[in-house]
Formats: sequence, structure tokens, C-alpha cells
Amino acid sequence: MSLTLFAVYFVACACAGATGAIFRPGAWYEGLKKPSWIPPNWLFPVAWSTLYILMSISAARISGFAAENELAVLGLGLWAIQIAVNTLWTPIFFGLHRLAGGMLVLVLLWLSVFATCVVFWSVDWVSGLMFVPYVAWVTAAGALNFSVWRLNPGEKPIEL
Amino acid sequence: MSLTLFAVYFVACACAGATGAIFRPGAWYEGLKKPSWIPPNWLFPVAWSTLYILMSISAARISGFAAENELAVLGLGLWAIQIAVNTLWTPIFFGLHRLAGGMLVLVLLWLSVFATCVVFWSVDWVSGLMFVPYVAWVTAAGALNFSVWRLNPGEKPIEL
Repeated sequence: MSLTLFAVYFVACACAGATGAIFRPGAWYEGLKKPSWIPPNWLFPVAWSTLYILMSISAARISGFAAENELAVLGLGLWAIQIAVNTLWTPIFFGLHRLAGGMLVLVLLWLSVFATCVVFWSVDWVSGLMFVPYVAWVTAAGALNFSVWRLNPGEKPIEL
Repeated sequence: MSLTLFAVYFVACACAGATGAIFRPGAWYEGLKKPSWIPPNWLFPVAWSTLYILMSISAARISGFAAENELAVLGLGLWAIQIAVNTLWTPIFFGLHRLAGGMLVLVLLWLSVFATCVVFWSVDWVSGLMFVPYVAWVTAAGALNFSVWRLNPGEKPIEL
């Protein structure tokens, strides 16, 4: 695995992760009704940091197969989609308080992460396996976003 | 050039471009002091649509060189950085009204777009050339963000 490529993909992840530091949950989020099974607050940055490292390692590994396998090149394109969608979710949910809009973005994120996982796995099962926790986490995040949306029907988005 | 890869990269661009529809300029932006040389409003979506098409074509072209040139693989990683940074700018500027923060993101965007342009050019000059209008536009956008920032010193960001 190329360390340069790991670093490049990690910078892309850092941009997506920066949204979590810029668009803070704050008092609005604290005041929302949440499901009983919601994970503790500290788990979110820990989980995302771990996932960003895993997705950078797997993108760097898949890059090493680009010379011999066309699916690796497709996988890198799908990786670019999922990082753009990932960057989109936080500003929509925490920035605009759009619970339904966040749900739509999470569905797109799940589809792009799952597609990346499948294509990565077909090229290199280790890289595919590194995407499995990401698929699981986005599934849970989707269930959480859905639950928060349904539990707070009167919540209005911020109008810019 | 693979049409599938063009479509994949265009979906990533559509995510970045969606921020322009979600985080609208609105009354706040209309009320800001702006430099005399500011382009007309209609030019922004036209320019971005054109740039998104060009950057998708060039990423799809560069993907076709991945089997023979290691720099193509590096270029695709840089492309992923620039699309994540691109997705970040609009929510920070139009969502949070952060003029200085937007400036910082535009510097990162310029660096990542320029790096992608140089690496793409070294692989395939046509793909590099397709990134030149993007470098030019982000240079102008940076000058505009800088000018708006300096012309509106009392402007306060939105607190979430």
C-alpha cells in the first residue's frame, strides 16, 4: 500500500470529517426526542475517525490494483461519490436542521458506501472487509436519523 | 472514455453541486457589499455546470490511463479531495455566513484543484486542459470571497 495514496485519501476524509467540527449538534440537537438505543455522544467521533482511517487504507490498497483490474478504477470513482455524500450530510442535518433531507442523504450515502464495499470486495476482499463496519455504521445512522425524524414531527428546518 | 465512469464521477459532482441548490444565497447575500467586477448571478450555475461536466470527463479519461501510469491513480485520489472540499464551501459560506472560513476552504480548494490539474496534465494533456477553466474559476471565486470578506468587516457568522 502506498503511504502517499493513504495520505491523499485521508485528506479527503478530513474534509468530510471537518463538517462534524464545524456544524455542531448544540442545544437544538440536545432538545430533540431520540430513541432509547441511541449510542453515547463520545462514540460518534471515535467511530467516524476509525471509519475514515479504514476507508483511506482500503482506497490506497485498491489503487494498487488499478493496473491489473478495471473494477478497481470503478471502485475509486464510487469512493469519490461516497466522500462527497458524506460531506453533505452534516451541514444538511446539523446546519439546516433538515431531518427529512438528512434521511434522503443517508439513503444516498448507504447506497454509495454499499456499492463501494461490493466493488472493493470483488477486487480485494481485505479492502471490502474494511468497508463492512462503514456499511454497518451508516445503517445504524440511517435508523437513528429516521427515528429522530419520526419522533419530532413538528420540527421545522432553518430558513436561510 | 468509459461512459460508466463519466456517470460515476458526475454523480459525485452532482452531490457537490446540490449544495448550491440547498444553501441559497438569499437576502443575506444580496445585502452584502460586493466588488464592482462581480460576475452576474446567472453565470454561477452555468459556470459550475460546465466545470462539473469537464471534471467528470477528465476523471473518466484519466481512469483509462490507470493501467499504464501510476500518476493517473494519484490524480484520481486528488480528484476525490477536490470534490470533498468543493462540497464543503457552500454550506460554510452560504449556510453559516462564514466569510473568513469560506476563504480558508477556497484556498484548500484552489490547492487541490491545481494539484489535480498538474497531475492530470502529466498523464494526459487533454484532461489537464479540461481542469484549466476550473483553476481559473476558483481563482476568481477566491478573489471574490476575499473581496466580500474585506468589504464586510462587521459581518457575523451564524451561531448554531
